[in-house]
Amino acid sequence: HDLGTAVNIVTMVFGNMGWDSGTGVAFTRNPSTGEKALYGDYLLNAQGEDVVAGIRNTKPIKELAHDMPEVWEEFVAIADKLERHYRDMQDVEFTIERRKLWMLQTRTGKRTARAAIKIAVDMANEGLISKEEAVMRVTPEQVDTLLHPQFDEEIKKQAVAEGKLFAKGVNASPGAAVGQVYFDADTAERMAKEEGQDVIMVRPFTRPDDVHGMLAAKGILTSEGGATSHAAVVARQFGIPAVVGASDMVIDLENRTATAHGLTIHEGDWLSVDGGSGEVFFGQMPTTFPKFEEQTDLITLLSWADEFRRLEVWANADYPADAKRARDFGAQGIGLTRTEHMFFEEERLPIVQRMILAETSEERTAALNELLPFQRGDFEGLFEVMDGLPVIIRLIDPPLHEFLPDLVELATEVAEMRARDETEGLAEKVELLQAVESLHESNPMMGMRGVRLSIVMPEIVEMQVRAIFEAAANQALKGATVKPEVMIPLVSHVNELKVIQPRLQRIAKEVMEEKGIEFEYKFGTMIEIPRAALTAAEIAEVAEFFSFGTNDLTQMTFGYSRDDAEARFLLTYVETGILPKNPFQTIDVDGVGRLMKMAIDEGRATRPDLEVGICGEHGGDPESIEFCHHAGNNYVSCSPFRVPIARLAAAQAALKEKGIKG
Amino acid sequence: HDLGTAVNIVTMVFGNMGWDSGTGVAFTRNPSTGEKALYGDYLLNAQGEDVVAGIRNTKPIKELAHDMPEVWEEFVAIADKLERHYRDMQDVEFTIERRKLWMLQTRTGKRTARAAIKIAVDMANEGLISKEEAVMRVTPEQVDTLLHPQFDEEIKKQAVAEGKLFAKGVNASPGAAVGQVYFDADTAERMAKEEGQDVIMVRPFTRPDDVHGMLAAKGILTSEGGATSHAAVVARQFGIPAVVGASDMVIDLENRTATAHGLTIHEGDWLSVDGGSGEVFFGQMPTTFPKFEEQTDLITLLSWADEFRRLEVWANADYPADAKRARDFGAQGIGLTRTEHMFFEEERLPIVQRMILAETSEERTAALNELLPFQRGDFEGLFEVMDGLPVIIRLIDPPLHEFLPDLVELATEVAEMRARDETEGLAEKVELLQAVESLHESNPMMGMRGVRLSIVMPEIVEMQVRAIFEAAANQALKGATVKPEVMIPLVSHVNELKVIQPRLQRIAKEVMEEKGIEFEYKFGTMIEIPRAALTAAEIAEVAEFFSFGTNDLTQMTFGYSRDDAEARFLLTYVETGILPKNPFQTIDVDGVGRLMKMAIDEGRATRPDLEVGICGEHGGDPESIEFCHHAGNNYVSCSPFRVPIARLAAAQAALKEKGIKG
Repeated sequence: HDLGTAVNIVTMVFGNMGWDSGTGVAFTRNPSTGEKALYGDYLLNAQGEDVVAGIRNTKPIKELAHDMPEVWEEFVAIADKLERHYRDMQDVEFTIERRKLWMLQTRTGKRTARAAIKIAVDMANEGLISKEEAVMRVTPEQVDTLLHPQFDEEIKKQAVAEGKLFAKGVNASPGAAVGQVYFDADTAERMAKEEGQDVIMVRPFTRPDDVHGMLAAKGILTSEGGATSHAAVVARQFGIPAVVGASDMVIDLENRTATAHGLTIHEGDWLSVDGGSGEVFFGQMPTTFPKFEEQTDLITLLSWADEFRRLEVWANADYPADAKRARDFGAQGIGLTRTEHMFFEEERLPIVQRMILAETSEERTAALNELLPFQRGDFEGLFEVMDGLPVIIRLIDPPLHEFLPDLVELATEVAEMRARDETEGLAEKVELLQAVESLHESNPMMGMRGVRLSIVMPEIVEMQVRAIFEAAANQALKGATVKPEVMIPLVSHVNELKVIQPRLQRIAKEVMEEKGIEFEYKFGTMIEIPRAALTAAEIAEVAEFFSFGTNDLTQMTFGYSRDDAEARFLLTYVETGILPKNPFQTIDVDGVGRLMKMAIDEGRATRPDLEVGICGEHGGDPESIEFCHHAGNNYVSCSPFRVPIARLAAAQAALKEKGIKG
Repeated sequence: HDLGTAVNIVTMVFGNMGWDSGTGVAFTRNPSTGEKALYGDYLLNAQGEDVVAGIRNTKPIKELAHDMPEVWEEFVAIADKLERHYRDMQDVEFTIERRKLWMLQTRTGKRTARAAIKIAVDMANEGLISKEEAVMRVTPEQVDTLLHPQFDEEIKKQAVAEGKLFAKGVNASPGAAVGQVYFDADTAERMAKEEGQDVIMVRPFTRPDDVHGMLAAKGILTSEGGATSHAAVVARQFGIPAVVGASDMVIDLENRTATAHGLTIHEGDWLSVDGGSGEVFFGQMPTTFPKFEEQTDLITLLSWADEFRRLEVWANADYPADAKRARDFGAQGIGLTRTEHMFFEEERLPIVQRMILAETSEERTAALNELLPFQRGDFEGLFEVMDGLPVIIRLIDPPLHEFLPDLVELATEVAEMRARDETEGLAEKVELLQAVESLHESNPMMGMRGVRLSIVMPEIVEMQVRAIFEAAANQALKGATVKPEVMIPLVSHVNELKVIQPRLQRIAKEVMEEKGIEFEYKFGTMIEIPRAALTAAEIAEVAEFFSFGTNDLTQMTFGYSRDDAEARFLLTYVETGILPKNPFQTIDVDGVGRLMKMAIDEGRATRPDLEVGICGEHGGDPESIEFCHHAGNNYVSCSPFRVPIARLAAAQAALKEKGIKG
């Protein structure tokens, strides 16, 4: 090869030839709001650097109409022509040399999420682009941004400059939260409920019995854990902004302080938590929050997306309020209701503990009979909100010891009491400790839970199924169309279903007979254990639907305990490229995805109308949604706040398959 | 159909027609020893019931030669004819009516393990059956029986009748053990080593730091755990009789007693543990133990088996003495050397703990440099014993917290000290507690261990690889043929190998250069994570061998934590038929087996000469060995005591495939 260097020689134009010259930059539409109007600034008698450097005060572009009306008209026409040519909003640079307009550059302009959506919808309405293209032009992340309160970027910059940045962690659940700091769930809940405070709950990490405090909080901050730690998962599920694993922060629970970089906050101090960036600031920063129902452009765009997608979008919702939000966001069903969250509520937990510690079947049944009306009430609200749409309710999943106090704490307490010769209440504590010890497991994730628990102790799920069908019947009698689907978790062998499912189906029939009403229902299973995926052909003989629990399926397929992995090595793996992505955020196509594809294909070979969904957190991840589209899922189910994102991502997957670009 | 009842009418013969009549039962060979001689008894002037009922004293069959010589001769001829016709030892009944012999029945006779082997070998030598048939006639369980000390069945029956049965549990490791009871590993070891006692170690369950006590004990008894609990696995590995999960026994560690059914034993009391039946007796019962090298018939049979099998049989051995035993039993290689057992030894554990708690890389390296000579010494012994055969050494696998004290115990201790205002040594304990807490994991089985630990903290495995290659080089320089194979555990993504393996291969080359010698070696991986099996094609690009860690692979594929599952629901699952077999004992063909088959086929597609083995406990299970034969393994590796069983089972798998029956 004998390549030389090419040199383009062009005549330079000058904007600084006097007051009939000038220079400027402009967007063909407002890059912040998307409004259809030229947006930018210019300077007379100046060169480009003067505009960019900010040393002289620029004039808004519209004033050019007064300064040089004929140049303005020509500029408007050219801007319009460029936009039509490139079929997108343009970012242009220009110079005026002695009243003659020269265009220096044009390129597609960067824009905010809000502008991206408005521009896409407007351009489609103007006939400039197709609806399909409009749908492809907005990223799911842009939609996400619009669904959470935000801090203004300028204000954050200023806060950093003023040294108000307290800590940084993993951006676990997007949105901005401002509140007063409390270091335990009970106090957080009390301050929120009784004092009406906005609360930021700060903990080293969270456990299921912290959920009541998390639900009462505006924001969550932890020093340990990663993007799929308990705190992160719960926060995203309920749309609570959260920063987790802020490891430069040291929490002193005894003195109720948290310290980072030598600065300490105390209980009651104000913090501003940016769950979208992982930043945490001292004090109160202002937020903005656009309401979904007021975002008409987004609603239009999503309605177009709905026309193009093949995947349905369902939501994971445990309470009627979540289900309502999900439905408002466009969910077409509930893909996962976790029944155990309800067990942790204040008035129920003692009954649940009584049930667990029961020494006879009668005692256990008595406790369960007390829980039945609570569960029925929970489900009635869900069926009411989801009138006409399917609701998948998962039977109890966690191990029973999650409902009892922590072993180490209790053992320590007992040891202290003994060392101090305190006898009051000791006997009860010792008895409880023995129960906790006897239920203790080395690896609870892979222990006595889900269907395993149901087979050994069927009374709990029998109560739950009765509650589900009584609730459904009651709503049906009031005129609602109910479609309950009962989901049995943690199945690894078809025989587990063969043992438990007929037993529960009998209860379903009994209740319908008692109530004198019939309605559609299904019994199915989660596919969250590798063996279930490997033997899906057999499992589909019994299960009427599959729902991929991709969190657990990823844990088992990789042999990763999520919390342990993210705390110790997983983030290193992602950073160093050993793993291309965090498999708890985006489905690992080669491993987990391969199992899913096998399960879908082989399950449908047995039962062609098998309903297939996904209720793991991946259901709200655009890349994973695209995988589910290709794998042949019927739906994805995600947290309510991600339903709009999933609607868009599902449409984009379908459009990409057809070769349509943005 | 019009089926009637058929009635056969035959003339009855009478053995009670006088002293020239009689009746008897006999085996054509001795069913207890296998000796080729008629064995049985008879009575003159009697009917069949008289012989069977035991109301009259019978005469040994040989006396018939005196009582009625011509009948005896005829009987001998008929017995011989029957044996030749049926080509097996016969159990016959006869009656003599007035000196005329009538044969009433013949059937293949039941026999002891010892007799089964002798009869099979003798009949093949006599030309009555082929060697192939002889190999098919002996069950692997019969071989197993001959490799462990035994209690006499009669003596056990008598002991039960006398109320000497103390407890029953899971028959975790076969063999009979008699010894004095001690309730902790240190005492058990001291009593065995210093006092020369035969010891039975009794614990609620065992942990890795109990291993030194277990190794010193004659037998092990636990009140918790199942057939694949730590106690059971270690016991089988070292051929120590064990009964685990004897849940009717309550251990009081404080008072050092164990109570079952109201009866209590104290430290120093004698127990007799039957690991083959799960029974535990008070006091000392006599045992019998046939030595392998004296069992010439078994040795002959196994040599025939070796001619027929395609699968090689390797052994899992951590110490030279185990490797020696394995080689004596016919092992063709070491499939698994666990390097971490060596870390628990008394003089090494403090160094290991110093290495773990090191705050700087220098401190860690210093501790590792102290460990290097120990590890090199361990490996030198192995290479010496295994001269000419491959030795697979697995790099460190367990999480580091296994080498530190238990969290609950330590937290309790600290709490007590604080409650009592004890300050001496408190600071050190608190510091240690913080380290233990920081390493604590929710599900350690799926946490920071294996290759994950090696990637984050490569110094340990670098030391290990150096130790392996220095040891191999030293032995090679002494004239031995060494074939080290380095096994990297817990791989789930090929990139893990791509990061760590070249780093270790460099050390291997360095050492060979330093020592000025070259020898064959391999680097490979365990396939014990579902994702590794699912992506075997990629992993085989880097790994030169696969070894299925079927214990972990079963855990992950089923989502079962072994100890938790066996303690809580797995045995119920097997009893009620939800699972056809315990998948930790016999490979689950549909799930785990499917993954293995995929991994072998796809791994060999990438690397046709890929060496494939199995080093999980299934390697010693005959049914699993048959599966491995069909799946295409090169070898199975099992505990030394199961090598003879595996040799037979591998031959039987090959013969069955050819349609040969026993």
